[in-house]
Amino acid sequence: MRVKTEAKRDAILAAASQVFRDSGFEGASMGEIASRVGGSKATLYGYFGSKEELFVAAMHEEASKEFEPVFATLNNKVDNLRETLQACGEKVLAFLCSPDRIQTRRAIIAESGRSDIGKRFYELGPKVGFQNIADFLDRQMAQGNLRRSDPLLAAIQLSALLECETVMPLTLGVEEKFSRPQIRQAVERAVKTFLAAYCVEAPTVGGHEGA
Amino acid sequence: MRVKTEAKRDAILAAASQVFRDSGFEGASMGEIASRVGGSKATLYGYFGSKEELFVAAMHEEASKEFEPVFATLNNKVDNLRETLQACGEKVLAFLCSPDRIQTRRAIIAESGRSDIGKRFYELGPKVGFQNIADFLDRQMAQGNLRRSDPLLAAIQLSALLECETVMPLTLGVEEKFSRPQIRQAVERAVKTFLAAYCVEAPTVGGHEGA
Repeated sequence: MRVKTEAKRDAILAAASQVFRDSGFEGASMGEIASRVGGSKATLYGYFGSKEELFVAAMHEEASKEFEPVFATLNNKVDNLRETLQACGEKVLAFLCSPDRIQTRRAIIAESGRSDIGKRFYELGPKVGFQNIADFLDRQMAQGNLRRSDPLLAAIQLSALLECETVMPLTLGVEEKFSRPQIRQAVERAVKTFLAAYCVEAPTVGGHEGA
Repeated sequence: MRVKTEAKRDAILAAASQVFRDSGFEGASMGEIASRVGGSKATLYGYFGSKEELFVAAMHEEASKEFEPVFATLNNKVDNLRETLQACGEKVLAFLCSPDRIQTRRAIIAESGRSDIGKRFYELGPKVGFQNIADFLDRQMAQGNLRRSDPLLAAIQLSALLECETVMPLTLGVEEKFSRPQIRQAVERAVKTFLAAYCVEAPTVGGHEGA
């Protein structure tokens, strides 16, 4: 058996991302991915045990590249909580709303009734994201910037608020795309509601207009 | 051409629901649905122009039966806003979390990249639901029970909070089912956050523990 290399693994993931994007999960073939990398299917299976495994790894690789700088920002000292949530929210939402990512989401959900692909995607993706956000919120709670409550629940609710105006309509094909300004405004509305619920000092939503 | 009847339409929808549930959208055939109703495919197409149209109508029929009493409750006079949101939230979430409905959600999302089925489902389903909730919240705002803000946005955010702990993990196959007590508790957490953000008098989340 040949020695596996990191470079080869990266090349396979890059080719796989492209093929899955072009053909969808069902349409993609391991043979085509192998030929793009310039190797055999046997080589491919030496790195990834199944098409499902390769798919999840390729999606994870793409998302990691995008999210690592965001999570790094959350580990820095925060001067303004609202601005930090806004900046990170815009980056995450812009990625989740990209046409490729919406098509990936559809493919993963379609497969979730037939295999454990959705579960494996969740473990590598959303679950890690929620935990990163929860760690950040936990520190904000410790510093007295947010009310003390369950940080993981707060992270899941924040994510839901961030996605609700855009990701669902895109996934269902109700909307084709959202512009950067639309994404910025959707994040503003989500962060406003989140802080109204969780922030020590924030007014409730619409509070400036009185009851 | 034969006269179309309401009873025949209902019979077709009932048979279609069963076949779509058993075989999924892709696996279901108009021929099988027709034979279950005891008619021809031509009769079927006299009522519904395509498999997509029949699928959306069947899903809508199921959801309507479930949601109409909930929306009727929202039209009644409300003594306790939190209790009303809790009771309605539990009914809606229990329906959305049922295995059949999760499988339907997967089927609709899978098709959404290929046809306008997701859009048509949205128009008949979630969009109508959001509007019903928004009308209710608008009245609560007018009565001074909630801060004045965009009621449709509030409805969409409330729905996202209600679904975030359960519908997504079920759709991805991360969880197999949630019990009634688990659903009740998920609704409690969603309603608490929603009211903390939107209610005139509610404390922020975790507010009882101080900052």
